[in-house]
Amino acid sequence: MATQKHGFNLTALTAEKNPHLKRNSIFKQITEDDVAFFKSILPQDCVLETSRVPEDVFLNFTADWYNLYRSSSQVVLLPRTTDHVSQLLRYCNEQRIAVTPQSGNTSASGGSVPVFDEIIISTKHMITIRTFDPLSGALVCDAGCNLEVLDAHLDAEGYQIPLDLPSKHLCRIGGNVSTNAGGIRMMRFGNLHGSVLGLEVVLPDGTILDNLNTNRKDNTGYHLKNLFIGSEGTLGFITGVSILAVRKRPVINVMILALPSFPSVVQAYAHAKRDLSEIIAAFEVMDQDSVLCVKNARAQWPEGEPLPVDDSAAFYCIVETAGSVREHDNELYIYLVYVIDAGTLRISINYLQKVDRFISKLKGEGVITDGSIARSKDRVSTSEHIGPLSSSAFPSIIASDLLSSTQIKSFWSWRERLPGTIVSTAPTTIHFDISMPLPILYTVVEDTRAWLREKGWLGTEILAVYGYGHVGDGNLHLTIPAARDEEWLRKALDDFVYEWTVQRNGSISAEHGLGFMKAPYLSHAKPPLVIDTMFRIKALFDPNGIMNPYKVLPSED
Amino acid sequence: MATQKHGFNLTALTAEKNPHLKRNSIFKQITEDDVAFFKSILPQDCVLETSRVPEDVFLNFTADWYNLYRSSSQVVLLPRTTDHVSQLLRYCNEQRIAVTPQSGNTSASGGSVPVFDEIIISTKHMITIRTFDPLSGALVCDAGCNLEVLDAHLDAEGYQIPLDLPSKHLCRIGGNVSTNAGGIRMMRFGNLHGSVLGLEVVLPDGTILDNLNTNRKDNTGYHLKNLFIGSEGTLGFITGVSILAVRKRPVINVMILALPSFPSVVQAYAHAKRDLSEIIAAFEVMDQDSVLCVKNARAQWPEGEPLPVDDSAAFYCIVETAGSVREHDNELYIYLVYVIDAGTLRISINYLQKVDRFISKLKGEGVITDGSIARSKDRVSTSEHIGPLSSSAFPSIIASDLLSSTQIKSFWSWRERLPGTIVSTAPTTIHFDISMPLPILYTVVEDTRAWLREKGWLGTEILAVYGYGHVGDGNLHLTIPAARDEEWLRKALDDFVYEWTVQRNGSISAEHGLGFMKAPYLSHAKPPLVIDTMFRIKALFDPNGIMNPYKVLPSED
Ligand SMILES: Cc1cc2nc3c(=O)[nH]c(=O)nc-3n(C[C@H](O)[C@H](O)[C@H](O)COP(=O)(O)OP(=O)(O)OC[C@H]3O[C@@H](n4cnc5c(N)ncnc54)[C@H](O)[C@@H]3O)c2cc1C
Ligand SMILES: Cc1cc2nc3c(=O)[nH]c(=O)nc-3n(C[C@H](O)[C@H](O)[C@H](O)COP(=O)(O)OP(=O)(O)OC[C@H]3O[C@@H](n4cnc5c(N)ncnc54)[C@H](O)[C@@H]3O)c2cc1C
Repeated sequence: MATQKHGFNLTALTAEKNPHLKRNSIFKQITEDDVAFFKSILPQDCVLETSRVPEDVFLNFTADWYNLYRSSSQVVLLPRTTDHVSQLLRYCNEQRIAVTPQSGNTSASGGSVPVFDEIIISTKHMITIRTFDPLSGALVCDAGCNLEVLDAHLDAEGYQIPLDLPSKHLCRIGGNVSTNAGGIRMMRFGNLHGSVLGLEVVLPDGTILDNLNTNRKDNTGYHLKNLFIGSEGTLGFITGVSILAVRKRPVINVMILALPSFPSVVQAYAHAKRDLSEIIAAFEVMDQDSVLCVKNARAQWPEGEPLPVDDSAAFYCIVETAGSVREHDNELYIYLVYVIDAGTLRISINYLQKVDRFISKLKGEGVITDGSIARSKDRVSTSEHIGPLSSSAFPSIIASDLLSSTQIKSFWSWRERLPGTIVSTAPTTIHFDISMPLPILYTVVEDTRAWLREKGWLGTEILAVYGYGHVGDGNLHLTIPAARDEEWLRKALDDFVYEWTVQRNGSISAEHGLGFMKAPYLSHAKPPLVIDTMFRIKALFDPNGIMNPYKVLPSED
Repeated sequence: MATQKHGFNLTALTAEKNPHLKRNSIFKQITEDDVAFFKSILPQDCVLETSRVPEDVFLNFTADWYNLYRSSSQVVLLPRTTDHVSQLLRYCNEQRIAVTPQSGNTSASGGSVPVFDEIIISTKHMITIRTFDPLSGALVCDAGCNLEVLDAHLDAEGYQIPLDLPSKHLCRIGGNVSTNAGGIRMMRFGNLHGSVLGLEVVLPDGTILDNLNTNRKDNTGYHLKNLFIGSEGTLGFITGVSILAVRKRPVINVMILALPSFPSVVQAYAHAKRDLSEIIAAFEVMDQDSVLCVKNARAQWPEGEPLPVDDSAAFYCIVETAGSVREHDNELYIYLVYVIDAGTLRISINYLQKVDRFISKLKGEGVITDGSIARSKDRVSTSEHIGPLSSSAFPSIIASDLLSSTQIKSFWSWRERLPGTIVSTAPTTIHFDISMPLPILYTVVEDTRAWLREKGWLGTEILAVYGYGHVGDGNLHLTIPAARDEEWLRKALDDFVYEWTVQRNGSISAEHGLGFMKAPYLSHAKPPLVIDTMFRIKALFDPNGIMNPYKVLPSED
């Protein structure tokens, strides 16, 4: 039996870990007849039964990536078409069979794995790219298309998906839309409410809500699609997505900056927003422990590659710029400025590079202590190549111009490998995804650390406290590996962190959604009337409550 | 009596123009008691009665900007607070008094003016800017804040609202959100679904849905706010708006391009998206008749100022770029490029300016016939200043560097004054707001013109056919001034244009909403299940149907 995940014991069944939670008895338990019906609709290999497939295959669907949730589902269905989904849902709705929609199963809030024995309907076999318009950028595809595959497909056309997550190799666009995923490029391209043009959704009764608009603008009635964006599979099953892809910017610079304090991070961010405004594509932060975690595990790429800046700093930022014109954002050029000043023509000679100038300024003001730009194989430290023109500076700068995508990938690996690395350091990980006004964003890490120390848990129950995330969106991932998978500990931390967050007008789920993990805390996030309205929306779309039960909305008991 | 609007006769009452339409008898007719109640809630000067205020004051609320709709409302209420709105709506809901929410009353689809005698609740006195966070850009304000005033307020902080409409001096943010307004900068900043962070909404029963989130990310439950964005006052009354302002880009270039054909417009747009991608802020088109309409009316600013390019071209585009670094996007600089080519260091000298280079390329490829950039008071024709370095070219280029906001304002006036100018050329104007794949976007103008000619109406009933709009969003305003305000003519044109649009997968309302004007055509825009779902959403929020009746959803008779 496959009892391991990330090198640790497989988590217990969710139902066992939550004995207080009762299976809703309205839901039918699957019978042979049901399975026979599913087989009458789907090709044979699209109905997976726990009794007939190897356990590790089945666990890909019934256990989550974080090793926090596991269901006792008996059946996984892999429809190929919208019509399949429609027939399956109609049947399940009539039969009161509870359903969990699943795409890449990377949900960070336990949304994608059933709680009890709900059947899983996965988009894994719905992977057709339907249409792409290279002039407008409108892409229409099946919900099961993998994010990285879509990006590669668009790359050939000079476009990219306006979304980038460290889980991109696993997650699928239907899952991204259902979670209103944020990720690394949100600060540049905005959220999915802005970029999704239309959706095709199968409602629980099997009817197909066809809203697959491809026009950039369409103000004809209520914007129903937005209700499904971020509703985590509780209102309907997304089968098709129309999304506005964005032009790929060919000129990329990735900087790693070393900073002495979080206030410096805030300052660097304010500078970046002002000075790099239209080319800034990402602004991420990691605290020192996070970086050391990757370093110690040799998880960066290439394995063991040294951090390109001083690794004793308190904070690190990864800043990416992406622009359209090589000369402006990347290449070195020398320029002569003609200024007419009080009637005199003055000519000054200088060289300029937006990104260099940015780093040079930060360094001059003491905001950063070190910085490195990925465009060459060599480490190009700011102290070497930023400054006024001097002939000796030339050769190294020119060399640095040989843009190296290897180096860029390497720089990003420090951030992208981080979540996986943390999870593989401990039997279980308790993680939070909060947003907060930027100046106090990191305080939650410090206060949680202090509180854990006070409780005597740091170094015993709790192995470490990491803080990293999307500064550009005021979004921090507080990630806490623990020695044992204990519900009381998780609960104590949840209570502390959510209370802390709510008191400061933060959001208790910035991008991961509520799923199963945070559903009980909805009342911390929203006032009663808002929650009541959500229940009414749920009842309107899913009167039998078969769609992803026990998720998002708190259970009423 | 004030019987004139834009210099023409005031339109007849909407009820008279639509004799087939019956007032819903469920709605109570206002009594003295109702007025007394309103006066018990609001300050005296916040209850306007038709019998007590000058007619032209009242007409500001009961007649629309386009002179197409007029109501027989007896009362206009001007609440000052959210609590006022709550008390008013609770009462109206109990009493079955129908209500039309109104902000700037610039609706282009008859959404903001009642159809019969509905009372008007205006946001005009709700104008407090509640909070602004200069680090994150989150602005929270009352729904009645005027768009231009908000922009001016943010300007001091280096920010701007991610929205810009030619009606900005009149419209109010609550109206913008309620219509999901698009406008001139949407191609740069995306739509309001992306940039609105939260809303405060009074539901018809008077309860206050407080969703005034200021965090950039918040995935805690269903995204209810998006239901109100674009629902045109039919689901609730927006009292507060939280929106993400964007950094002001200090370096602005505005180009007017002259183009020989619409395919050239498409080519120019494709070039712009690729070459100017991150600094492009707007891309508008006007056909020749549109430009001549402004010219003949001397409506441009300053009055009578000549068009800065050849005015015999078939099409004109106004393209704006906005960047953060002056040297990159605006100033002239001379640069030396060092390239290591097969071991040899080659140095080339050139000068470069992103926008100049863009125009030069378009000109070289014959995409444009003329072009002018607003940064100086002089006309700077592309033929004069774009090209390889020559000493004689210098002085004029340097002069052109003195960025002139006067010139920019003047360039934009050709586009911004256009809607108003057209409306003032004829007793009535029939207008359409469609979106469509770009290559065929202008065909609707040509086909409509041909069809009108065939019918024998062009030059008789119909005075002209103008096409202009937001190329960057595939959105065209087809605007047709007519000699008389005839319902049969309007209906014939509606049928032709909507049919044409739907056959080509376009949207019959890109940004103006459905309002009263296009509600009957919803079935052209959306499949039955989608419409049915909209009716269910309406019933859920507004079971008595008091909110802006006869709008958005087709009347059921
Ligand atoms: C290493 C790692 C890094 C991550 N980084 C980020 C990040 O930066 N930003 C971020 O936002 N998230 C991040 N996540 C979380 C996760 O990747 C996202 O939430 C992602 O959008 C989920 O997509 P998925 O395809 O895996 O969906 P799943 O996990 O399968 O499903 C997610 C939710 O959507 C529902 N669902 C799935 N498909 C459908 C459908 N077709 N119709 C209706 N409902 C459906 C599920 O029921 C579930 O509730 C990360 C996760 C990991 C493991
Ligand atoms: C010259 C001109 C140019 C224009 N250009 C554009 C353009 O480029 N792009 C574009 O999208 N539009 C354009 N419009 C149309 C119009 O300006 C927009 O629709 C604008 O957003 C309306 O804002 P408003 O404040 O005038 O709202 P109103 O016209 O008062 O109301 C619009 C709708 O919203 C409802 N409403 C208003 N306030 C509230 C509230 N507080 N709560 C709930 N419902 C409310 C009303 O009932 C109505 O249905 C233009 C109009 C004119 C006259």
